Amino acid sequence: MGEMGETGAQGSRGTLGVAVIGTGRMGADHVRRINDVISGARVAAVADIDAGRAERLAHGIKGATAYTEPAAAMDDPGVDAVLIASPGPAHEAALLDAFARDLPVLCEKPLTPDAASALRVLEAEQKLGHRRVQVGFMRRYDAGYRTLKSLLDKGAYGRPLMLHNKHRNADTPPGFTNAMMINDSVVHEIDVTRWLLDEEITAVRVLRPAPTDNAPEGLSDPQLILFETTGGQVVDTELFVNCRFGYQVSCEAVCEAGTARIGDDHGVYVNTAGHWGGTITPGFVERFEDAYDRQVQHWVDATRRGEVEGPSCWDGYAAAAVCEAGVLAQATGDRVVVELIERPDLYR
Amino acid sequence: MGEMGETGAQGSRGTLGVAVIGTGRMGADHVRRINDVISGARVAAVADIDAGRAERLAHGIKGATAYTEPAAAMDDPGVDAVLIASPGPAHEAALLDAFARDLPVLCEKPLTPDAASALRVLEAEQKLGHRRVQVGFMRRYDAGYRTLKSLLDKGAYGRPLMLHNKHRNADTPPGFTNAMMINDSVVHEIDVTRWLLDEEITAVRVLRPAPTDNAPEGLSDPQLILFETTGGQVVDTELFVNCRFGYQVSCEAVCEAGTARIGDDHGVYVNTAGHWGGTITPGFVERFEDAYDRQVQHWVDATRRGEVEGPSCWDGYAAAAVCEAGVLAQATGDRVVVELIERPDLYR
Amino acid sequence: MGEMGETGAQGSRGTLGVAVIGTGRMGADHVRRINDVISGARVAAVADIDAGRAERLAHGIKGATAYTEPAAAMDDPGVDAVLIASPGPAHEAALLDAFARDLPVLCEKPLTPDAASALRVLEAEQKLGHRRVQVGFMRRYDAGYRTLKSLLDKGAYGRPLMLHNKHRNADTPPGFTNAMMINDSVVHEIDVTRWLLDEEITAVRVLRPAPTDNAPEGLSDPQLILFETTGGQVVDTELFVNCRFGYQVSCEAVCEAGTARIGDDHGVYVNTAGHWGGTITPGFVERFEDAYDRQVQHWVDATRRGEVEGPSCWDGYAAAAVCEAGVLAQATGDRVVVELIERPDLYR
Amino acid sequence: MGEMGETGAQGSRGTLGVAVIGTGRMGADHVRRINDVISGARVAAVADIDAGRAERLAHGIKGATAYTEPAAAMDDPGVDAVLIASPGPAHEAALLDAFARDLPVLCEKPLTPDAASALRVLEAEQKLGHRRVQVGFMRRYDAGYRTLKSLLDKGAYGRPLMLHNKHRNADTPPGFTNAMMINDSVVHEIDVTRWLLDEEITAVRVLRPAPTDNAPEGLSDPQLILFETTGGQVVDTELFVNCRFGYQVSCEAVCEAGTARIGDDHGVYVNTAGHWGGTITPGFVERFEDAYDRQVQHWVDATRRGEVEGPSCWDGYAAAAVCEAGVLAQATGDRVVVELIERPDLYR
Repeated sequence: MGEMGETGAQGSRGTLGVAVIGTGRMGADHVRRINDVISGARVAAVADIDAGRAERLAHGIKGATAYTEPAAAMDDPGVDAVLIASPGPAHEAALLDAFARDLPVLCEKPLTPDAASALRVLEAEQKLGHRRVQVGFMRRYDAGYRTLKSLLDKGAYGRPLMLHNKHRNADTPPGFTNAMMINDSVVHEIDVTRWLLDEEITAVRVLRPAPTDNAPEGLSDPQLILFETTGGQVVDTELFVNCRFGYQVSCEAVCEAGTARIGDDHGVYVNTAGHWGGTITPGFVERFEDAYDRQVQHWVDATRRGEVEGPSCWDGYAAAAVCEAGVLAQATGDRVVVELIERPDLYR
Repeated sequence: MGEMGETGAQGSRGTLGVAVIGTGRMGADHVRRINDVISGARVAAVADIDAGRAERLAHGIKGATAYTEPAAAMDDPGVDAVLIASPGPAHEAALLDAFARDLPVLCEKPLTPDAASALRVLEAEQKLGHRRVQVGFMRRYDAGYRTLKSLLDKGAYGRPLMLHNKHRNADTPPGFTNAMMINDSVVHEIDVTRWLLDEEITAVRVLRPAPTDNAPEGLSDPQLILFETTGGQVVDTELFVNCRFGYQVSCEAVCEAGTARIGDDHGVYVNTAGHWGGTITPGFVERFEDAYDRQVQHWVDATRRGEVEGPSCWDGYAAAAVCEAGVLAQATGDRVVVELIERPDLYR
Repeated sequence: MGEMGETGAQGSRGTLGVAVIGTGRMGADHVRRINDVISGARVAAVADIDAGRAERLAHGIKGATAYTEPAAAMDDPGVDAVLIASPGPAHEAALLDAFARDLPVLCEKPLTPDAASALRVLEAEQKLGHRRVQVGFMRRYDAGYRTLKSLLDKGAYGRPLMLHNKHRNADTPPGFTNAMMINDSVVHEIDVTRWLLDEEITAVRVLRPAPTDNAPEGLSDPQLILFETTGGQVVDTELFVNCRFGYQVSCEAVCEAGTARIGDDHGVYVNTAGHWGGTITPGFVERFEDAYDRQVQHWVDATRRGEVEGPSCWDGYAAAAVCEAGVLAQATGDRVVVELIERPDLYR
Repeated sequence: MGEMGETGAQGSRGTLGVAVIGTGRMGADHVRRINDVISGARVAAVADIDAGRAERLAHGIKGATAYTEPAAAMDDPGVDAVLIASPGPAHEAALLDAFARDLPVLCEKPLTPDAASALRVLEAEQKLGHRRVQVGFMRRYDAGYRTLKSLLDKGAYGRPLMLHNKHRNADTPPGFTNAMMINDSVVHEIDVTRWLLDEEITAVRVLRPAPTDNAPEGLSDPQLILFETTGGQVVDTELFVNCRFGYQVSCEAVCEAGTARIGDDHGVYVNTAGHWGGTITPGFVERFEDAYDRQVQHWVDATRRGEVEGPSCWDGYAAAAVCEAGVLAQATGDRVVVELIERPDLYR
């Protein structure tokens, strides 16, 4: 592992140098994310079998080097951790390379494409004697799923008995197969089922309705997938990947004394104790936390570009003038006219 | 201005060194935000009249120095920009200090506490010849308001004719006055009105219903505030700061051919062309973008602490095993039992 | 008053013979309603200045006679009560005619077109010494408004402080004027304000935004109407009668400890005690009461026409067969095939 | 069949004389419904094995006679039609009695308790040569289900592929069994499935999660019931009869180009073409039709009791006075005070 704490000036712990393995759509997006969105990390190396693509990506990033071999990228002196975003069949080798260097790994899902290879990875990590891998099941980080998980964990509505999942895509890319409907789509419901319920899945059934005419020839779309769990729960998932109308992922947990649903364009929607509905945010911090974060990020981004954006001194002045009129109107009960100077050129 | 591009290793442009002026609730929160949440910036200096508070805050941040004078903090060699979060009456002096050094500023609202002082700041910035200040009207960065703004800007439902705002707080801190209801609360509706409609406010009325028994003696709560604009629009705001049930901010724009409302625990809610409702996210990127960001941030944070969290290799293996059973169940129509090895100790 | 109890065979009290005064849109609709929808009444007489229109309407109804004079209709021996649905300026005379005969009256709104004539009616009814008139403010019979009223009456969320009303029409008929926006549209909000709050309105303001291009020349549309009440409440009403998107009437009561809104395509929507949402029906009676009523009404209507509709014996048989398969499937855990005979011709 | 057209004075076709067989909860409720709610029918006879119960019920209804034998009730000279609300095992005999007299029948569900007896009824009706029976699957008359049916029938969103049903009860009466969960509860989903899709059900599966602790010993609650149809559709039903939180029945149809859901405390909720939401009522007739019906029914009921209720002349006068003030306020832009006379005693 590289020496963290020397490379960066940010924070008390030093910036994490990351090697991003794979520079396709997901890999390039993670590079952008590390660069522009999150705090405490930087891209130290990128690796892709396509040398040109790796170099183009590394070119725009100060301190990032391009490699064609994952192992070489991991050996870059600035690298503290590895993010694997290459195609699934390449994951096993990259994971073993990272284990050989004892580097922390964020591995895009799937861990590997089948259970046998996943088992080999599992055994290799056990030989290290400690966990090194986080698998990229990102739904566990979605605000809705997290709230649902916390409700289930604290038993807000009693034991969970069933889950109803819906997983809908507007359409599928060319070459999408029935097996991919399980391996690439339902795999997310597999993970959230195991995570939300804290149980293993013990059996699977798949029902296949007469397919939509909008599905490519041979694709059985939609499907209804049924899980049973070690806890005796039953989980159904509607998978409909050519639904035309958009992307929609929802999950309803049916518990002994209530149900909670996420994903329908509003916060957690609960039925319990004679009422349907949800929770009102307690204060402005919860309501506008994202706005505060975005505000400061936009200001930092604009400033680094040498630009000034957002509400100006004119906006501050106009607000002050309206406030003064408002306080007078409040005291008198009258209609109070707001007086403003002419808007200076600088603020047009 | 400090030399950007030399201080940090992150990104192509260098990390922005920020002096945070004021270390009360808002200032301390901005320090945390710059440190732990956003990318591209670091806290280089903090200033507070309370030296001990400034030092305690600076202590935990590598490379940050504590000052008691705003001007001294701005002179810190690592400082590229200034974030003013001191009390409103201190803003004018701090802004002039920043102008003297030609530093970019993010100034918490209000710009200054009254129109006369705001006008002086306006004139000082004009003498610089370029904009340096962004005022902290953070609602402009709220996802809901931004979507509403973009709908209005593209005329999705024709010209806006009215706005209905609701601004509700569970309760007020001790000492909250009628004037503060305008200056601290309604000021946000003043700004979003001006910004959403791109018009100035020309007149104000305030109606004061018989107050709730839950308001402190002397506080006229709720109130109905009415604005008229240069565009002839009428804007009403219910301000109810002891509503007991929580914090709720919503805004409905009434346009010639439809209305759009934000803030009611769901996405933008539209009435138009015979339908009520909203927009379905087109794809997984929009739906789960925040989850991807949070996933990588959590991984980076845990890794920097030397920890491993999140979905493990066991989760990757179990998902692979269920996928294999699922593909078989799909092909056969049968109930397929999932076979897993016993869970190794490392993953318990 | 006619002798009730002799005319009809329905119920223990006899069917109420109604004289319908005015056979325009509203009058004809009330005739249909008395005939086909409600129980316990029949149309005994209709009156219209247009003799042909009255006769055409009476022709299809057994026992109904047509008149041109309201007084003559009221003198019909089968008449027990009067429903006035003529134009507003004709109401005063018809009401006095009914008072002269001491007949119960349902009078479409407005009672009369102005306060002075309403006062004369008020005085005439007082001379009778008992109430005879019900005014047709039908919103008091809307399920949503009734629930809201009962919540306010029992103080579910404390004292009401404000009402926010919205009253939107897709468009206006030719000749619609600003005065009609008050007299024909806002009059409903005037009544629900007085009824819901149980207070009188003490003052009115009207704000007129720059109008929509979709309004006819000269119509100030939309408007914001403000009421103050004897209870100190403030009530605002958005009236927008050329909103294009449809008809929408909603009302939100803001109380000391919560708000309740009706009219947005769902049941009563409440904010209180940290939650938004509404009430779940306690049982199937509440949920399906209307369905039961409609079922029996449809059966009676079809039977009187000599027809048979609705679910058939085939539907009853098929349900029984699926139930048998279901009970077996439940006991065995197996997929059980449903066996049906071929569908007989009678049920195709 | 009795001579319709002679018995009643209401409407052009005569009032339908109904024999109600069975005077338990459902039967008594139907008697009330025919008496007080719907138009065009009257209760001519009631029959119950419990003679006292039948007589008590008939006692309050003019023209109704009590019987202990269904056949005797059907022979009452005032009877034109039969409503069977006796326990299921008694249905077959009563149906055959009605067939013998060629009387129209509304038969509460189930038609009969099993497929074999239903088949005998089916054959008997075929011998009549025409349909005489409507089975009491009342969901077909629920406003939500009817809208959903009409959307499916016109192919608003393409072919239906799946249905998701939820059927939740707060709790179960003593003695409720697993078989009753199918025969008494799921039977409704069986009927709506067949009706909405216009297909027969070909196979059934039942999955039984680990039950809630709130279910009585031995009751497998909740259950997931799966249907396959002649059209290849797959239908799932969550049946949860001790859910504690209330009664909830919903149905979502998944079609090729959209989904439509009813039953969640709002109108039909649709996902299609990038939008979620529903339809706005086009005009006041649709929005307030029920209010108009209820208004006139209440007026008739009160008048028959010799009472006067609802909005009074005072309400009419006060509305007129506020309208006058409103029109003045509209014209002047001023706050206009409303002048009312003191409220007369008659209207207090």
